[in-house]
Amino acid sequence: MSEAGKRLTHLDEHGRARMVDIGEKAITYRCCVARCEVRMARHTLAAITAGEVKKGDVLATARIAGIQAAKRTDEWIPLAHPLPLDSVEVILTPDEAACVVRVEARVQTHWRTGVEMEALVAASAAGLTIYDMCKAIDREMSLENVRLAAKTGGKSGTFVRKGEEGLTLEGGG
Amino acid sequence: MSEAGKRLTHLDEHGRARMVDIGEKAITYRCCVARCEVRMARHTLAAITAGEVKKGDVLATARIAGIQAAKRTDEWIPLAHPLPLDSVEVILTPDEAACVVRVEARVQTHWRTGVEMEALVAASAAGLTIYDMCKAIDREMSLENVRLAAKTGGKSGTFVRKGEEGLTLEGGG
Amino acid sequence: MSEAGKRLTHLDEHGRARMVDIGEKAITYRCCVARCEVRMARHTLAAITAGEVKKGDVLATARIAGIQAAKRTDEWIPLAHPLPLDSVEVILTPDEAACVVRVEARVQTHWRTGVEMEALVAASAAGLTIYDMCKAIDREMSLENVRLAAKTGGKSGTFVRKGEEGLTLEGGG
Amino acid sequence: MSEAGKRLTHLDEHGRARMVDIGEKAITYRCCVARCEVRMARHTLAAITAGEVKKGDVLATARIAGIQAAKRTDEWIPLAHPLPLDSVEVILTPDEAACVVRVEARVQTHWRTGVEMEALVAASAAGLTIYDMCKAIDREMSLENVRLAAKTGGKSGTFVRKGEEGLTLEGGG
Amino acid sequence: MSEAGKRLTHLDEHGRARMVDIGEKAITYRCCVARCEVRMARHTLAAITAGEVKKGDVLATARIAGIQAAKRTDEWIPLAHPLPLDSVEVILTPDEAACVVRVEARVQTHWRTGVEMEALVAASAAGLTIYDMCKAIDREMSLENVRLAAKTGGKSGTFVRKGEEGLTLEGGG
Amino acid sequence: MSEAGKRLTHLDEHGRARMVDIGEKAITYRCCVARCEVRMARHTLAAITAGEVKKGDVLATARIAGIQAAKRTDEWIPLAHPLPLDSVEVILTPDEAACVVRVEARVQTHWRTGVEMEALVAASAAGLTIYDMCKAIDREMSLENVRLAAKTGGKSGTFVRKGEEGLTLEGGG
Repeated sequence: MSEAGKRLTHLDEHGRARMVDIGEKAITYRCCVARCEVRMARHTLAAITAGEVKKGDVLATARIAGIQAAKRTDEWIPLAHPLPLDSVEVILTPDEAACVVRVEARVQTHWRTGVEMEALVAASAAGLTIYDMCKAIDREMSLENVRLAAKTGGKSGTFVRKGEEGLTLEGGG
Repeated sequence: MSEAGKRLTHLDEHGRARMVDIGEKAITYRCCVARCEVRMARHTLAAITAGEVKKGDVLATARIAGIQAAKRTDEWIPLAHPLPLDSVEVILTPDEAACVVRVEARVQTHWRTGVEMEALVAASAAGLTIYDMCKAIDREMSLENVRLAAKTGGKSGTFVRKGEEGLTLEGGG
Repeated sequence: MSEAGKRLTHLDEHGRARMVDIGEKAITYRCCVARCEVRMARHTLAAITAGEVKKGDVLATARIAGIQAAKRTDEWIPLAHPLPLDSVEVILTPDEAACVVRVEARVQTHWRTGVEMEALVAASAAGLTIYDMCKAIDREMSLENVRLAAKTGGKSGTFVRKGEEGLTLEGGG
Repeated sequence: MSEAGKRLTHLDEHGRARMVDIGEKAITYRCCVARCEVRMARHTLAAITAGEVKKGDVLATARIAGIQAAKRTDEWIPLAHPLPLDSVEVILTPDEAACVVRVEARVQTHWRTGVEMEALVAASAAGLTIYDMCKAIDREMSLENVRLAAKTGGKSGTFVRKGEEGLTLEGGG
Repeated sequence: MSEAGKRLTHLDEHGRARMVDIGEKAITYRCCVARCEVRMARHTLAAITAGEVKKGDVLATARIAGIQAAKRTDEWIPLAHPLPLDSVEVILTPDEAACVVRVEARVQTHWRTGVEMEALVAASAAGLTIYDMCKAIDREMSLENVRLAAKTGGKSGTFVRKGEEGLTLEGGG
Repeated sequence: MSEAGKRLTHLDEHGRARMVDIGEKAITYRCCVARCEVRMARHTLAAITAGEVKKGDVLATARIAGIQAAKRTDEWIPLAHPLPLDSVEVILTPDEAACVVRVEARVQTHWRTGVEMEALVAASAAGLTIYDMCKAIDREMSLENVRLAAKTGGKSGTFVRKGEEGLTLEGGG
């Protein structure tokens, strides 16, 4: 497929940043899923998992951080539109074999534009919060592969990233 | 080195989240550098680079996004302290061979606690803003290896992550 | 009525916090009224009332504080939805017999979910602002009985709290 | 035209501030254009223009500042409604003859109330950001004639300020 | 004690609101403790407590809400100063006999002014978040007796409210 | 005086936006005064003035808006430093002869950098709030001559703009 006809829609014909006009798009159901992995030392994951069993606050705090950040995406991302959200869900899954916490953020809305950035911001903020809470014992943690895993709704339809085929996208109203 | 004596300082003795007390720490110079790479298709990087030569707004917008996000780190990261900053710098370097934009955020302060999270938030917000501005032509971009590259100042002294040895940390007042 | 079938809708089946999905709810008129009393020493109420007659800024500032806080409810309350508001009204009534300022916040919207939290946040912020402005002369002030007085609209219909029967709920569009 | 029948709608019958109820207004297309001029010394404008040709960051930063401020209008302006925006555009035009940078902000929405304040806030924030970035070389800059140049949509229809007749207002959905 | 000599320091000599000048106050250690009770039906408290044992997210979310709100006190309370914080702690204690959750917020700083409002805002936001998360099963919950329980530091010294004598105020740097 | 040696300190040697490093500047007393005039129709000023006598909420709301905006200057102005403030005062003076409301904002701090932008943001937000509250009766209002009237403190010493010589700058700690 030729990319020649596509443009960076956030720049006007003079290359200047602008917030894209979504006024003529339809209000429809849209859902986006973003993912990343927080890579860490084995002892760090063990400390989180032990915490989870007993008290849960590392992952509970990261979940809240992701949800709150999604709501404020238009403050992180200069050209993002302010928009209402139907739901935000942040799922954190420790994977001891891979020595990571898997982060998945799902955001749904009925609006004129998609929620890719809301999902990516939620996943990033949740991942960074895990970093913050564990940095005293592991400075070398990293966020890996922050990505849009899937989206549905809008004119461009459904997209599932290569390697994320297992994922289910719930239907909407 | 045994990790047994270390603790997740953001949890109290009952595992509950809290903002760590920094009241007895000294106000000293602190500098942190965070890095990530924004991986993208070759045509996406070409579109950004062409823009940069002519008008610059993709990278200019991402730089501003990173600087503004650093200032609001305590809103994204629930247990981060509100603190003043001396400077924030976001350096974006397109690397055509690797097909990435390299993101580096440097944050300096004179305060009672470090600015690891400010640097990581700045790098993430700058990277996500590049994603936002280019997502119309490349949905499969990703942020790779969001990490603390180096820090100096504070009781724990200077840290340079493995693989980041080339980096210079400016001195402070 | 049995409460057994009800659930904490802000927790998923594993007890994890989430923002409830409102995507299938109808956009309808909704109005909520919250109330509290700011209890204070007689001389404090006199100082406010004298101020009101002459200049008005204690109550004027508290009214603005309540209106502005209502707009930012989703920042105070982690799982609250970001949503548009039709109106916010904060009514402050000094009651010299009871030695309180009565605070009433009314919030209206046309949206998929109610504005209970917006009304409660507005009433609390207005009350706390009165505390702030008078704390130099009366540290022992308190906010009493911060409560949802009434709501209308949405699937659950109209609710008037016991003891608040006098209250009128305006009709909406 | 008599002004006697008009009222300050942001005050209730007792003169108390309130957020006007827009619940019965129709959701329609609305567009507002605000303008101001940033007056400066000749050498300051030359420094900006030289920068624009080579790198662009003064005006690029001011454009982003205007767009971001528009999104947060309801935080700066106490009685403004929180509302979604379709688009924000900030156009900055150096005018060497007049020794000013002309600032124009265009904001569009489909909502129950107009976006006058969003456009005025965007123009002001862009102008103040130019001040900030150049104040080291010119403290005597000023913002002149911050004004609503035109609006369309809503019950009151189209308005074009005297002296702004040349301006085109794009149509909306 | 005569109150005649005291004034509402947030009003100038004409009764106009202002942010009090703290420039000549010393930077010293200051700690404030605020408290309130969230009154609820027995079945609501049981649902929270059961959650706490198994997963903890109602109270974990409320703790985070309180901590985050404390950091943003100067946004909710118009005349509050923006200031750095050393620590924020929110302690939530279900009391089955009294059918309440007891909320205590402790805030410490080294600054030119006290943190009364930060503690009160944290306690209120934590209490309102409990309301939010449980309102689907209990609309009649209320926040009772939101109060400053104690403070230390600053020119006015240590204050312990009547009825709060048991409370310990930790020392600071 | 030659301007050749001066630079736009908000741009690095490549013209890229950055937050200037203030780490080596001394913490000293600094005060800035900004001013503007809100020009309006005679009947608008009469409505405000009548309001002021009886209830005061237009000017009271504008004062609060200015104070709150000053605290959040680093959100409006991308490269402004987050910093603590000692005081903010907004003085609004209706001038019937000139048919304007005169706006003056005074901001004081002890910090490493000046508060020019805080004063300018406060004056602008207060002026725009007057516009917002009166726009239903007068769309043609404008903000005129938003300017830094005076500053004191910091390495560059005291500055009083031409035409503002009458102004007194209070001393600080």
